[in-house]
Amino acid sequence: MKRPRREREWLDHIKALFDAPPSPAGIGDDCAVLKKDKTCVTTDALAEGVDFEREWAPPEAVGWKALAVNLSDLAAMGAKPSCFLLTLGIPPDCPDRWVEGLLAGTAALARIEKIKLIGGDLSGSRGGVFVSITAWGTLRAKPLLRGRARPGEGIYVSSPLGGAGEALKMFGKGARLKKFALQGRDPGAGLLDRFYRPPSQSRLGRVLAGKKLASSAIDISDGLLLDLSRLLEGTGCGALLSAEAIPRAASDNGDPVGLRNAMTSGEEQVLLFTVSKDRERYLPGGGKGIYRIGFVTPKRGIRVRDGGKVSMAGPAGFDHFDR
Amino acid sequence: MKRPRREREWLDHIKALFDAPPSPAGIGDDCAVLKKDKTCVTTDALAEGVDFEREWAPPEAVGWKALAVNLSDLAAMGAKPSCFLLTLGIPPDCPDRWVEGLLAGTAALARIEKIKLIGGDLSGSRGGVFVSITAWGTLRAKPLLRGRARPGEGIYVSSPLGGAGEALKMFGKGARLKKFALQGRDPGAGLLDRFYRPPSQSRLGRVLAGKKLASSAIDISDGLLLDLSRLLEGTGCGALLSAEAIPRAASDNGDPVGLRNAMTSGEEQVLLFTVSKDRERYLPGGGKGIYRIGFVTPKRGIRVRDGGKVSMAGPAGFDHFDR
Repeated sequence: MKRPRREREWLDHIKALFDAPPSPAGIGDDCAVLKKDKTCVTTDALAEGVDFEREWAPPEAVGWKALAVNLSDLAAMGAKPSCFLLTLGIPPDCPDRWVEGLLAGTAALARIEKIKLIGGDLSGSRGGVFVSITAWGTLRAKPLLRGRARPGEGIYVSSPLGGAGEALKMFGKGARLKKFALQGRDPGAGLLDRFYRPPSQSRLGRVLAGKKLASSAIDISDGLLLDLSRLLEGTGCGALLSAEAIPRAASDNGDPVGLRNAMTSGEEQVLLFTVSKDRERYLPGGGKGIYRIGFVTPKRGIRVRDGGKVSMAGPAGFDHFDR
Repeated sequence: MKRPRREREWLDHIKALFDAPPSPAGIGDDCAVLKKDKTCVTTDALAEGVDFEREWAPPEAVGWKALAVNLSDLAAMGAKPSCFLLTLGIPPDCPDRWVEGLLAGTAALARIEKIKLIGGDLSGSRGGVFVSITAWGTLRAKPLLRGRARPGEGIYVSSPLGGAGEALKMFGKGARLKKFALQGRDPGAGLLDRFYRPPSQSRLGRVLAGKKLASSAIDISDGLLLDLSRLLEGTGCGALLSAEAIPRAASDNGDPVGLRNAMTSGEEQVLLFTVSKDRERYLPGGGKGIYRIGFVTPKRGIRVRDGGKVSMAGPAGFDHFDR
């Protein structure tokens, strides 16, 4: 809790500076909702030196992920992907082949997800490569928003956690992803591949929204604890999580990643959502492959029960503005 | 003509790689048009070291311009600004005060133009600051597209040209903009201020579209010659310009900028459009403050008549990918 929440402070500053947004999902939600036509829009950027390094993986992987993180935001609203804009910033030292690879990665995922490129902007860049995507989705039902959870509801994640944080550590130690296949949405064998190819949450998001199963949802992009605190913001509620119930990704040696890593690992692109007791039995596949990690409590703050001990957890996820 | 058209080549590559866009205005036009609801969307990014340097001007100027270039794209479609997304990439060495200044500049122009912020993304950046905006506008009439000009039509610009190129030269020689006022859409006295505060083309764009006055339009962001060649692309037509008729901005010593500068200066955010003979008399203000610089010809290529001499002109505007 000593860790400054810089990104959050900036969001508050921006909300105060600009007038309130006209959409039901305000600034800070996964997507903005354009009321009239039930369209969702989101924007997410990857920057070299912040979100990736060029030597970590083939450019196809970067292009794929740049779109995948936006698809994850659409999924967290329950929206079906429709079209997107692509903005590229390319530094002078970046070879054409690298840019072509990046575009091929984005195009491959776009084809699989049937999302159409409708425009964009090509720019130079002084520092590193940046890829900024704005993506639209259509809503057939009310969007999955934040701040709607009620005490007693179950808290769920759609996939084991911590793999992305583990992959970042491995990249930091010199691990490299040599190949990145351009077909199939399923993650490859290793954590490094999965870092760039998060599994699609699109179908799950649409089911949660369409059948009104989830009361609120978010995608985990900055860590379970930080994103859970965002999900609960404005509800006056807190959470009690069970350490054993938090599913942990297997690291490449087969052991599960540490609990702390699972709770703070960002860029997971996993859905985190709340479901009321009477809705739980309608979860797709009887809730198989979905993990209930705890409950919403009437008391503020996030607590974790580990064995017999309950302790407070700070929202110590990844903050983009932590310098 | 020796100058490689790198940005164009990338556009062609992208068009081939991704399937054709579903909107009437395809990839490469000022905006994409979302058919159903007559909404226009555009995206344009400014990158430090490419489009500006931090020491040139107060951050308010950069934030203002980042939105202004997007408003200019909406104007070139005849759309009324409605809402926007803001993505910021901030390097570690960039002080908070600078970011606050940038946001204040964007917010001030947003208030004047009544365009609402609906979301965005905050990111770190390794190299320089980048500001990427996606902006929406609504169309009350058919959008002003490219590629619709016919032989015999007049070619018009909405403002004198070359001021932006001149300002860039001045910045390069060490000139600095000390103050940037946050009210009023009218450009200040000097070229340096106007570089960041291009006059609004929004009303003119809407009149040209609403009264079906222009057959095609574009905003000059990469130079008159380059953008004119884009405007005429696909028509099979060319242009004959009159050197004397091209309005030239006054440099700060009062002399008009050179002809070459007026024809190649980018970032002008001036409307360039074509009007048929029978429509000319309906131009707003009887065409006052609008400049006819030549005619569309049935023969391809852009020619310039200077005194008695007619010569071919290459599309030698600014290309973002010219390294």
